[in-house]
Amino acid sequence: MRKSMRLDGFHPRENEMSIAFQDVYAEKFSHCYGCGRNNPAGHHLKSHWDGDDTVARVLPDAKYSGGVPDHVYGGLIASLFDCHGAASAAAFSYRAEGREMGSAGEPIRYVTASLKVDFHKPTPMGTELVIKGRLRSIEGRKVWVELSLTAAGQVCASAEMLAIRFKE
Amino acid sequence: MRKSMRLDGFHPRENEMSIAFQDVYAEKFSHCYGCGRNNPAGHHLKSHWDGDDTVARVLPDAKYSGGVPDHVYGGLIASLFDCHGAASAAAFSYRAEGREMGSAGEPIRYVTASLKVDFHKPTPMGTELVIKGRLRSIEGRKVWVELSLTAAGQVCASAEMLAIRFKE
Repeated sequence: MRKSMRLDGFHPRENEMSIAFQDVYAEKFSHCYGCGRNNPAGHHLKSHWDGDDTVARVLPDAKYSGGVPDHVYGGLIASLFDCHGAASAAAFSYRAEGREMGSAGEPIRYVTASLKVDFHKPTPMGTELVIKGRLRSIEGRKVWVELSLTAAGQVCASAEMLAIRFKE
Repeated sequence: MRKSMRLDGFHPRENEMSIAFQDVYAEKFSHCYGCGRNNPAGHHLKSHWDGDDTVARVLPDAKYSGGVPDHVYGGLIASLFDCHGAASAAAFSYRAEGREMGSAGEPIRYVTASLKVDFHKPTPMGTELVIKGRLRSIEGRKVWVELSLTAAGQVCASAEMLAIRFKE
């Protein structure tokens, strides 16, 4: 188990033994500020399997506050959903094809077509945020993903994503 | 006219003569990482009137890339919509009541209830992004705002926001 990372004031929890989805992205598509391992300034969000669902865990630094210092700002919440959702879409697609993520063959990568975030209650600062993804459906190049963000046992936000399989 | 700010690698264009909406937020609600003047680490997004619509302009630093270095990452786009949309909701509400923003009386502040972002095409890096807001409707404490993000004359993303008037 690796120690928690601290990067740009952001703290992904590196508590999963498996390789993260983002760790097997192709080199040239790994520059995302939210989750790319090749972006030295970014958040380096890491997404993993959690049974049939997916999970990412982060502990945001206090600077990522909303209007009041006690709560996480909405833009970060949307960012976490965006990166985790697109990574989850790729993972669901690999699994649907019976492949391991990053296995030999055509790489699978998704981009976000739409993301609808519902903010149910303020997201508290200073506690781990657990972002989960669940597959709703795969239809051709489209994947629909349902997302939730939980803090201290409370679902503070949820989201729906439509991701489109990237074609070079 | 003030010079462009450079903060945390983010470049709001300070090209408006008027005071920004965020400049009149109450002190204790001005800590947002995306747009709060009291958050020294944040982006300091500034929103202004543009006729009956609203506008914010930014030039993101190259580090805010998506999967490929040429494009802006989706999380930043969602963040810009979130901060500009909530600020616009407050501005529309002040105007509907015939008040100047930040005028004496009860302060008006909105929080995001839902934000749906549609990504139409990749948002290019290295060019100014123009985020516009338009009032769709005000019903009691609810304000619906339509948002767009334009780069180099192309609408790259759009969004719909439902904002709720904050009650202490």
